[in-house]
Amino acid sequence: MLKDKNEQRTSISELGEFGLIKHLTKYFKIQQESTEKAIGDDAAVLEFSDKQTLVTTDLLVEGVHFDLAYMPLKHLGYKAVMVNLSDVYAMNGTATQITVSIALSNRFPLEAVEELYAGIQLACDTYKVDLIGGDTTSSTTGLLISVTALGEVTEQDVVYRNGAKPNDLLVVSGDIGGAYLGLQVLEREKQVFAANPNSQPDLEQYSYIVERQLKPEARKDIVKLLKDLEVKPTSMIDISDGLSSEILHISTQSGVGCNLYEDKIPLDPQVISTCEEFEIDATTIALSGGEDYELLFTIKQEDFPKIKANPHLTVIGHMTDKSEGINLVTRANQKIELTAQGWNSFKKD
Amino acid sequence: MLKDKNEQRTSISELGEFGLIKHLTKYFKIQQESTEKAIGDDAAVLEFSDKQTLVTTDLLVEGVHFDLAYMPLKHLGYKAVMVNLSDVYAMNGTATQITVSIALSNRFPLEAVEELYAGIQLACDTYKVDLIGGDTTSSTTGLLISVTALGEVTEQDVVYRNGAKPNDLLVVSGDIGGAYLGLQVLEREKQVFAANPNSQPDLEQYSYIVERQLKPEARKDIVKLLKDLEVKPTSMIDISDGLSSEILHISTQSGVGCNLYEDKIPLDPQVISTCEEFEIDATTIALSGGEDYELLFTIKQEDFPKIKANPHLTVIGHMTDKSEGINLVTRANQKIELTAQGWNSFKKD
Repeated sequence: MLKDKNEQRTSISELGEFGLIKHLTKYFKIQQESTEKAIGDDAAVLEFSDKQTLVTTDLLVEGVHFDLAYMPLKHLGYKAVMVNLSDVYAMNGTATQITVSIALSNRFPLEAVEELYAGIQLACDTYKVDLIGGDTTSSTTGLLISVTALGEVTEQDVVYRNGAKPNDLLVVSGDIGGAYLGLQVLEREKQVFAANPNSQPDLEQYSYIVERQLKPEARKDIVKLLKDLEVKPTSMIDISDGLSSEILHISTQSGVGCNLYEDKIPLDPQVISTCEEFEIDATTIALSGGEDYELLFTIKQEDFPKIKANPHLTVIGHMTDKSEGINLVTRANQKIELTAQGWNSFKKD
Repeated sequence: MLKDKNEQRTSISELGEFGLIKHLTKYFKIQQESTEKAIGDDAAVLEFSDKQTLVTTDLLVEGVHFDLAYMPLKHLGYKAVMVNLSDVYAMNGTATQITVSIALSNRFPLEAVEELYAGIQLACDTYKVDLIGGDTTSSTTGLLISVTALGEVTEQDVVYRNGAKPNDLLVVSGDIGGAYLGLQVLEREKQVFAANPNSQPDLEQYSYIVERQLKPEARKDIVKLLKDLEVKPTSMIDISDGLSSEILHISTQSGVGCNLYEDKIPLDPQVISTCEEFEIDATTIALSGGEDYELLFTIKQEDFPKIKANPHLTVIGHMTDKSEGINLVTRANQKIELTAQGWNSFKKD
């Protein structure tokens, strides 16, 4: 939240659109065999041969999805890629290419856009994904990023949301609630800073949850882990809107019910301690927080031995007959019907 | 430019994001065999089997690319699809799917978004393209549309920008300059209306050029025509930024020179008469106007007999050795070096 007073400011209009794209993408390397032709023609040309192609897209808008007061541009670029790759992994696929379009107002100098692209490049390098196209334009206000991710998957491997069966186990990767809590910490620090611009934020004790918010990782490793364990989920989704909303998607699309056990929900110690500090209920955060980008999936009971000792995976419930409904089973052993409290950008203000 | 005072206004926030997407996409039909799974999962699943996949994306921003004062939302939706399909056709491919993401401020009621999607649907129906995904979110100001188009093409058919050879003929489809002139007419009418809100615009004599601006068509028919004529272009590009800029792309990427003949540039009579009225040079408009979405391509000389009588195609020049440069040969038979005067959104104000 400190401003570098020596920062360079080069106007983007000097470069023009073609010059800007060339400048921003010159260090990107092609890593996927399926990329025949990336940037530089009317369209990119890809070769998926016998595999199926996955396509997903997400739009991030300044003032709605992110606040540049505490979101560094490099992290933002990284995160914009992650939220899209996460959707490809949720199909049990391999992410292979992305397109990135940005609209930005003239308050952003070239150096700011370079930072954004540095984050995009880091994501591409880390996840072995090729940047194959995009569009760069001005906007009347603010910054907007539109990413489309492509991936590949064999017909045998693809996992939809609608394959869960009664008695299947409900499994989640990692832990949840951290990203939302990290946002609460950052919002609080922003207000402290607004009241006293000389204050220095000490985020040490929140490092994990702040990182979950600012630099999430898509769970490519879980897709690989499941393959190694020879477990094919019966259904899968990524957690972008909160556990509750995602369980409802899987259950309704699969035509089954679900019992989610409150005491099984994996929470990081920092989530628990921060919830105590903020005097909010950790289960509520896990159910409705969102932005964790963990994978939520169902597996057949017979696959349980293969995953049970794994520290990255937690069984949090099981699917039931549709007639039993979609429920949270509380620590007090009470059944409460789950309702989606996921985030709705249209209701924000 | 008249307001319907009885217009309904339903707030989008009532529906939420999932409800909105469901509502807007319920009448879209799947028409492509390659679409395995469209909207409703983490990612769409496509099956291109032995064909190559084409991917292109474009971003349209209110106040930069369009003005809702004279651009009806239905036309805008249609045009947003066209500008993307045009890029797929410029690869000599078949457009098959699109994703559409929109960000919109709360000044837009549901009925406005329905209009936008009616245009998108009309484009999908007319061009046999499937809507397979997207994102819908709020924005702090204005409307923004991000479209990604996918297409398919065989390895034998794909045409890049870089295949032109010396002595190839330079060919353009349709006529050019109309879209830009149509915009000038609409801008003038907007100012007249601002000065006198009771004025009724009479656009009768500008109907063709206004339609070129508001409802362009991507040249799917030209791709088919070339196939029927058994002509495979050696290079191809679509005209979005003006003839000059596109000729420079083909020439530099192919490593050749070019002679463009001023007297061969196809102009509609309405373009000529409106240029006279506005006292601007028609050649300048054709070279730098943009947004015509015609196809510009090169063919081998031996293919000339196949295209020469065709009313949709005009030979406007020929490629030369690189050392001869990229030139406009004027009516007075003077050679002038071509420079890109294409549109640059970053330089707009």
